[in-house]
Amino acid sequence: MLENTALDNNGHLNETSRIIKVASQSRSTAVAGAIAGVLRAAPKAEVQAIGAGAVNQAVKALAIARQYLKDDGIDFFCVPQFIDLDINGNERTAVRFCVEAYRPPKSM
Amino acid sequence: MLENTALDNNGHLNETSRIIKVASQSRSTAVAGAIAGVLRAAPKAEVQAIGAGAVNQAVKALAIARQYLKDDGIDFFCVPQFIDLDINGNERTAVRFCVEAYRPPKSM
Repeated sequence: MLENTALDNNGHLNETSRIIKVASQSRSTAVAGAIAGVLRAAPKAEVQAIGAGAVNQAVKALAIARQYLKDDGIDFFCVPQFIDLDINGNERTAVRFCVEAYRPPKSM
Repeated sequence: MLENTALDNNGHLNETSRIIKVASQSRSTAVAGAIAGVLRAAPKAEVQAIGAGAVNQAVKALAIARQYLKDDGIDFFCVPQFIDLDINGNERTAVRFCVEAYRPPKSM
């Protein structure tokens, strides 16, 4: 699910390689766990889905991940965009969510 | 598609009432036009969908709306959340995207 994840020399996740690929059969809670795991370690993540079922699972996972991260004091926003991919010689359009984490101010 | 839209005394859209409801049959370009229209007039919009097909159309519309708004110098980010709704006595869970517009700095 988590592709090309690499640690840099300092043991941190590589900045450029956090694409979480979601399929229509992916469990949204498992994907949410992956998103939360990335955002606990790094400020950005990317979530990619092809097709209506996969996009729906991705969105559910994003909503669940916000709940998972609440106790860590982390929230995030996301920006959807289309990405053209070449998959085995076939051109496919994926939806990719660029996710950016932030720490909301604590309420009194 | 655009519900409860109301103009205030100054002719501006009412701050609290911009829920764009998306169905699986909604045309994503039409929804994108509605999102762009709201965000040209106001800094926030809400996009709501129930079911995988509707969520997919909503996400596609959000990605298209960013393209529509590019020439206006407007971009946005969104935050997905679950909302429990009572629809004709049946409890349904919707996905609602809270959308916030901003003006990115112009590139040189």
